[in-house]
Amino acid sequence: MYQISKLENGLENVQGFYCGATNVGMRTNPANSGVSDVDGDVAFIRSDIPCDISAVFTSNTFQAAPIKHFQKYPKDFKTDFILMNAKNANAMTGQKGIDDIDTLMSALKERQAVRNPIMASTGVIGYRLPLEKIASGFDNLDFSAKNSHLTARAIMTTDSFKKELAYKVSLEDGTSFNIAAICKGAGMINPAMATMLCFIITDADVPKTDMDALLLDASDASFNRISVDGDTSTNDTAMLLSNKTSMAYDKEAFQEALNTIMFELAMMILKDGEGANKLVAFEVKGAACEAEAKKASMALSNSLLVKTALFGEDPNWGRIASTIGASGVNCDDETLTIHYDDLLIYSSEFRELDTVREEKAYVIMKQESFKVTCDLGLGEASYTSYGCDLSYEYVKINAEYRT
Amino acid sequence: MYQISKLENGLENVQGFYCGATNVGMRTNPANSGVSDVDGDVAFIRSDIPCDISAVFTSNTFQAAPIKHFQKYPKDFKTDFILMNAKNANAMTGQKGIDDIDTLMSALKERQAVRNPIMASTGVIGYRLPLEKIASGFDNLDFSAKNSHLTARAIMTTDSFKKELAYKVSLEDGTSFNIAAICKGAGMINPAMATMLCFIITDADVPKTDMDALLLDASDASFNRISVDGDTSTNDTAMLLSNKTSMAYDKEAFQEALNTIMFELAMMILKDGEGANKLVAFEVKGAACEAEAKKASMALSNSLLVKTALFGEDPNWGRIASTIGASGVNCDDETLTIHYDDLLIYSSEFRELDTVREEKAYVIMKQESFKVTCDLGLGEASYTSYGCDLSYEYVKINAEYRT
Repeated sequence: MYQISKLENGLENVQGFYCGATNVGMRTNPANSGVSDVDGDVAFIRSDIPCDISAVFTSNTFQAAPIKHFQKYPKDFKTDFILMNAKNANAMTGQKGIDDIDTLMSALKERQAVRNPIMASTGVIGYRLPLEKIASGFDNLDFSAKNSHLTARAIMTTDSFKKELAYKVSLEDGTSFNIAAICKGAGMINPAMATMLCFIITDADVPKTDMDALLLDASDASFNRISVDGDTSTNDTAMLLSNKTSMAYDKEAFQEALNTIMFELAMMILKDGEGANKLVAFEVKGAACEAEAKKASMALSNSLLVKTALFGEDPNWGRIASTIGASGVNCDDETLTIHYDDLLIYSSEFRELDTVREEKAYVIMKQESFKVTCDLGLGEASYTSYGCDLSYEYVKINAEYRT
Repeated sequence: MYQISKLENGLENVQGFYCGATNVGMRTNPANSGVSDVDGDVAFIRSDIPCDISAVFTSNTFQAAPIKHFQKYPKDFKTDFILMNAKNANAMTGQKGIDDIDTLMSALKERQAVRNPIMASTGVIGYRLPLEKIASGFDNLDFSAKNSHLTARAIMTTDSFKKELAYKVSLEDGTSFNIAAICKGAGMINPAMATMLCFIITDADVPKTDMDALLLDASDASFNRISVDGDTSTNDTAMLLSNKTSMAYDKEAFQEALNTIMFELAMMILKDGEGANKLVAFEVKGAACEAEAKKASMALSNSLLVKTALFGEDPNWGRIASTIGASGVNCDDETLTIHYDDLLIYSSEFRELDTVREEKAYVIMKQESFKVTCDLGLGEASYTSYGCDLSYEYVKINAEYRT
């Protein structure tokens, strides 16, 4: 038995970790974001003790320089410092972009508090990092600070709110450990803006082999299930760092805490989804195999027509059905059923929406969050992905993002 | 040698064909469309002589009732009459939807002018056809009319303008034939609204075997290259009817005329693309094989982020590069080059946009139409698809379409 309890604030809850941010003048006041030009644009997470680190990265062929740089390290590499910056993704910058990281890492290592630094970036693709500006911030960073709020704000781009979470896990033997995370990415509905960064830190005594497997599983159950439009950013990164200082660990408890924190962060990203107002779960069940359930579910959460129907609160199930039919999975309109929450909205016997069911459907669709369940009626496999609506605001944010 | 010349108006140019439309009261005054409630909602194309017919249909598993109904006919089936309706797609209506077509076809056959009628529908998914309403129009249709304008308008849904075209093909031996077409679909950027219908008629003496092959090729070079968001409608249909009355034919000339008419119609759909302001060609060349070139090209024309960047006239090539990197094709940022029209906007030597090139890029992007060329630098294969921008108007139209 164990108990997982939510904590106030974020990263400062984890023993032996420090974090903070500064503004080196890269930020301008963005039109569609919760940050302003006085927020930080360079930030850090530091641990007294070098940490085991596990990471998952974007599948984009054009991985950004920080990802290529990180991947040069050996499997058993330990780090004590992550340098982060916003406003510039250091993506598509070639070998020079990688060399630039070496330059910054060398400058950092001259500081007494830093031994094995790594780097993560987010922002616009295609520009070299302003090295002098970034390095100028090193003097202003207090490496003994524990300021999670500022750190979480410093990595925001089009995010309208900062994302940080922390949990305490109490084990039966009286020991306990902490896990906390910050992440950024308002546009997981469109992560091609070099978008998603997530840093999870823990003082649990978790073995490196567990870390790798559990991070992969938790990613599949969280960030990989939120709607991505087929676009995948050059910079998407989730990292898990453990410094073991609590001496406490239980695999099952750790797994649940990690899954919880990553799923909640994914839902926060979706809720912040650029201009989005609604969070919708798309469960496809009754599929012949999980791959088909996933394919149909992801087709729904990625469909422009489904997204605009959600925004318009239009209960027409035709767009749902058509998207499933176009997804390429085995399906049959005689065995298919569609529910909005608990309301049967389509089956082969009830094809047309009568006024009573239509009124009920309107009520469901007006909620901030609801579930669309499509039962293919063909097998036992299921998969749930999560999407949001597409609003005017999305177009505005993405048309104006850079200019 | 042959000469192809554009004609005024549309379907009335083709010998032995008649067309017209009537309003049976299905139309309401749509908020975002070029049609009004006085336009027709039931229309026909008729030929004195039964026609050979070739057709290509949507790959959606949930093909609409008219498509299923048509596919029951033998390969050598000849038709003299197409009944069309807007406002109701007769899709996801099960066996009853197919039976409804039989009912309407029986009623039509009682008319002296009609022998082997077929049907095509467009509109909302999931409702039975209003049979009495539609049949009530048969008395008002003048089966000897030649009114292409009304017919083209009657099949519009969210289209802002009617789409009709006609060409005369003059052959070296002094003979000539005509080919004309109407089509509908403002949302080929989103054809899941049971959207695209295209009817091509000709008096050319084209053999049925040529018809099948040429229609397939022309579709691949036109409608299948315009951006479809991965969504494919339940009703997409392109039909080619020939009544041979001109006695004239030349395969090469006919192929060029058919390709021209279908490509121009596809571009008209894209220009009308719901709320779209820009038409952009995405050429991917230097690919290892055509399948890869097509995959990358379609990824670009379907990307929400690319579409919104076009709308925002943002010359940031990062979204183009990121989309190619995420498309899963072989690519390398060292060999990749990106051009907007003739302007080199990215190569491994010129990664950052300087002010001069950025200003030039702005000028190009402000055009109504331009070309994005991505050379992967890996092989000889190429593919071009066509897309449009994503505007506020698109969201508005699709949020409000049905309600």
